Amino acid sequence: MLRSSIYHRPKNNFAYAYDEETLHIRLQAQKGDLQDVTLIHGDPYIWENGEWIYSTSSMKLVGSDDLFDYWQAIICPPHARLRYGFICNDGKESLTYTERGFFEDVPTHCHYYFAFPFLNKIDVFSPPSWVKDTVWYQIFPERFGNGNPKLNPTNTLSWGETPTQSSFFGGDFEGVINHLDHLIELGINGIYFTPIFKAMTNHKYDTIDYFEIDPHFGDKETFKRLVDECHKRDIKIMLDAVFNHSGYYFEPFQDVIKYGESSKYKDWFHIAKFPLNPGNQLSYRTFSFEPTMPKLNTENKDVQNYLLEVAEYWIREFDIDGWRLDVANEVDHHFWRLFRNRVKAIKPDAYILGEIWHDAMPWLQGDQFDAVMNYRFTNAAIDFFAKKQTTVEQFQNELVHVLQSYPQHVNEVAFNLLGSHDTARILTVCEEDTNRLKLLYLFQLSFTGTPCIYYGDEIGMTGGDDPLCRKCMEWDENKQDLELFHFVQKLISLRQQSPAFSKGEFSFHAINESLVSYRKTLGDEELLIIINPTNRSLKVKFPTSFADSIDLWTNKHVSNDLMLNENEFVIMRKMK
Amino acid sequence: MLRSSIYHRPKNNFAYAYDEETLHIRLQAQKGDLQDVTLIHGDPYIWENGEWIYSTSSMKLVGSDDLFDYWQAIICPPHARLRYGFICNDGKESLTYTERGFFEDVPTHCHYYFAFPFLNKIDVFSPPSWVKDTVWYQIFPERFGNGNPKLNPTNTLSWGETPTQSSFFGGDFEGVINHLDHLIELGINGIYFTPIFKAMTNHKYDTIDYFEIDPHFGDKETFKRLVDECHKRDIKIMLDAVFNHSGYYFEPFQDVIKYGESSKYKDWFHIAKFPLNPGNQLSYRTFSFEPTMPKLNTENKDVQNYLLEVAEYWIREFDIDGWRLDVANEVDHHFWRLFRNRVKAIKPDAYILGEIWHDAMPWLQGDQFDAVMNYRFTNAAIDFFAKKQTTVEQFQNELVHVLQSYPQHVNEVAFNLLGSHDTARILTVCEEDTNRLKLLYLFQLSFTGTPCIYYGDEIGMTGGDDPLCRKCMEWDENKQDLELFHFVQKLISLRQQSPAFSKGEFSFHAINESLVSYRKTLGDEELLIIINPTNRSLKVKFPTSFADSIDLWTNKHVSNDLMLNENEFVIMRKMK
Ligand SMILES: [Ca+2]
Ligand SMILES: [Ca+2]
Repeated sequence: MLRSSIYHRPKNNFAYAYDEETLHIRLQAQKGDLQDVTLIHGDPYIWENGEWIYSTSSMKLVGSDDLFDYWQAIICPPHARLRYGFICNDGKESLTYTERGFFEDVPTHCHYYFAFPFLNKIDVFSPPSWVKDTVWYQIFPERFGNGNPKLNPTNTLSWGETPTQSSFFGGDFEGVINHLDHLIELGINGIYFTPIFKAMTNHKYDTIDYFEIDPHFGDKETFKRLVDECHKRDIKIMLDAVFNHSGYYFEPFQDVIKYGESSKYKDWFHIAKFPLNPGNQLSYRTFSFEPTMPKLNTENKDVQNYLLEVAEYWIREFDIDGWRLDVANEVDHHFWRLFRNRVKAIKPDAYILGEIWHDAMPWLQGDQFDAVMNYRFTNAAIDFFAKKQTTVEQFQNELVHVLQSYPQHVNEVAFNLLGSHDTARILTVCEEDTNRLKLLYLFQLSFTGTPCIYYGDEIGMTGGDDPLCRKCMEWDENKQDLELFHFVQKLISLRQQSPAFSKGEFSFHAINESLVSYRKTLGDEELLIIINPTNRSLKVKFPTSFADSIDLWTNKHVSNDLMLNENEFVIMRKMK
Repeated sequence: MLRSSIYHRPKNNFAYAYDEETLHIRLQAQKGDLQDVTLIHGDPYIWENGEWIYSTSSMKLVGSDDLFDYWQAIICPPHARLRYGFICNDGKESLTYTERGFFEDVPTHCHYYFAFPFLNKIDVFSPPSWVKDTVWYQIFPERFGNGNPKLNPTNTLSWGETPTQSSFFGGDFEGVINHLDHLIELGINGIYFTPIFKAMTNHKYDTIDYFEIDPHFGDKETFKRLVDECHKRDIKIMLDAVFNHSGYYFEPFQDVIKYGESSKYKDWFHIAKFPLNPGNQLSYRTFSFEPTMPKLNTENKDVQNYLLEVAEYWIREFDIDGWRLDVANEVDHHFWRLFRNRVKAIKPDAYILGEIWHDAMPWLQGDQFDAVMNYRFTNAAIDFFAKKQTTVEQFQNELVHVLQSYPQHVNEVAFNLLGSHDTARILTVCEEDTNRLKLLYLFQLSFTGTPCIYYGDEIGMTGGDDPLCRKCMEWDENKQDLELFHFVQKLISLRQQSPAFSKGEFSFHAINESLVSYRKTLGDEELLIIINPTNRSLKVKFPTSFADSIDLWTNKHVSNDLMLNENEFVIMRKMK
């Protein structure tokens, strides 16, 4: 047995409370090494005749990637307390793995074992329940719709011209309100707005005033109307909180520039020496090395109070439903705990989404965020479907790895995006091959998590990295790819029709090395989705249990001699 | 290369901020598999000509246990941000290990790497600096000294009789004050008191009133005098907070018994059904299955406010220096975060010590505890020195495993005990062999962490499990083992004489398989401690670099032909 490859550590993704009664316990082992794993588990205080009383449960192999097998058991400890260990069997030997290491004989005292000391409800990671049912649409407000030309910035270009990094096109809230029908038609039910507060640039990540709407976008009355109109249509609204840094023209920073060490805001930033010299990157900390984005000192109580009031204000006054947190991982954990407490106190089902491109487990323990932007999903999906750089096996391995890196309920609300204002448009990444994009959408909209569509991607807009990925929304139907639009629309509608399609438990189900195939199951409903991403027709042998199933996509019976042409797929559905 | 045995995950013990400028990065690999490991690291925002700029640093093999080698690098990122990965070389191949897995070629984009996004000062685990210099003494107040017979409970037995679980002997605060000279003579500078609040039992873990001193121990004035007398002598005071559960006679619980569902305290506990039936363990949650210890509902805001006021009150009014938290791991994390904020607000250098017998990483991230009771140290030390059940190699493996499970600064303030009111006395565990106990004390008092001596152990008291480990303190010098006392006294004084002895960096330094040998280094001072725990004399070959060193214990030069008799040791000291 490869003992050094066996890993478990309580909390994080290896042992966590899935809900107020249920623990998930996982073990990681070298791929193929173990034949079976049995969980030993019991309450630490239940003893009879001087012996600890424990039960055993078979663990299930729930996934594998290139290096590891992942075993899982689901346990509901009656007194909310658990000690547990793993009987690992590789066919040659059987060893019990505990907190104190491996033993040939099963240790009889519970002190040896791993502990999940108590399942306290308040510590359970519990994201808003509506998020699983949400399909997001990301709007970069300067480029979505110009509904009020009176608010246009000076030097506004004609709608549709090629943007530069500094161009303005006059997009505004009125423009979003005018186009809500498009969103309803598509079927989305959540909008994520990149920043809308007063700022200098077109992207507004350089906030001047966190309590003011950017005047080019509209006023508070218009924003309130926008939120109300969305809520009437069951669309949630999420705003972008840029709390890592302010803009250069943020009043407190201007005060520090002006008054130096005597400014009452001098502790609002990270200042190495006075006077500030904005040309010298070393005199104060910034986002990246960008002198116009001074890093906020979120350890300072006044800054905390100011930003927490911002967080509360837009919920209290405008009833927004979520905050997306820019550069979230560079801000301290202490601040995010305060932030969560404040936000959840006023709106318990608000969604808190952090921008973290890397492993985000330390922020997803229940005390900080509800989710992060799932770029690890993005990378895996793009490398496979869009760039065709990876094999089916590599693609599966990477996604299993990501899923197993987090608790299940974290995955269920992960923010799965294919692109954003920070990346080239997905159709461009697909080398403008719409077939690849369709499969990406199929996969994104049926994968575990909450999907997000970047404005215009659904009608086939193209564009490379910033600024080209921020072109004006194309409203001329003749220039929209309506077939793509209807394809995405149909996928979204399937999510409503079939709870398994949207929220079912996901697992890969290998059929052959060229096909992507996976199951989604929820209650009585079971789906088997098979995708042919190759450039040739393939005959598909599917499990006999699906022999009489219906293809959700075509509503036709699936033939036993299923042939899938290139880029074709089938969504086989059966009821238990 | 055994890829599946290589493990790293940011935060926890694998990547952490040691102080406000310094990160420790660790990698775990199969023992013996890697010949060298190089850390690749850089700021994510420093690019030149489209290429990410990184540095490399050699990692140091800082320890090994039975399964793993542990590699470490220390990095001070100039802009507080880090991306990093590991070039692993096993002599046959060289692979770069990143967040996205292993690569034959070193990935050039920082997105591939692990992230320590920002070193925010407020998140740095920062225990009180005085703890490293503290030697604790645990007092069970009912049994230490009877200074005021007027306060004796009814049925008080004669001092020194054999205790049962329900006996009383009249120990009190006056008795502690009267015997402070003993503590000063021994050299300790911290007292940990088991509970002192009003309760029914002799152990007082069944609190009736968290705001009252138990009347058998004294009154608030006497307690204040005790704290002041200790502070005058530079002795810190730590109290026991029993917040997991109250006692049966705690007024709110009595109110619930009396008024049932209409009690205003009904949400202060975890009640499954009314009326409460204290005979029925299922009608409410308790500590273990003990009906007289109802579990407090620390998720309830009133309970939180009540307990947090308790935590603050004894600091504010009596200036205590620390809280030891009983059954800490069964109380929710959320409560402990509130607790830390409240305690540190009023006394920033208060010590917060959790009773956790198992892996405690989730409580030691900087937001909850400063330390836990290090029972994993206890077990390893006892199995080896006291019970002689393990080999030198097993002993070392277990301790390296514990040390590598936590960040270095967590280890530096770990509460290292050999026994307590919950275990048989250490001399009894040693089968009354004082030689074994002396070596245990040598090891405990020179190991990384803050050591604690259980009252009476220093004079050779014996006794099995509760109630025998709670015998009255022996004040008759004729019945005290004064040689043992002076031995411990001398070890404690060495901690003052030699900063390396107390606070030096610890590492095992194998000399031969029968000897325990380890280095302690701090600044210019370097110690090599060699212990012969066997029952035969052994000739010791020590490193030539220590050839001219002095034995701190005897103040003599160490001979090149060093012979260590059974149970003998040497503390070789040299200055760089
Ligand atoms: Ca406009
Ligand atoms: Ca007394």
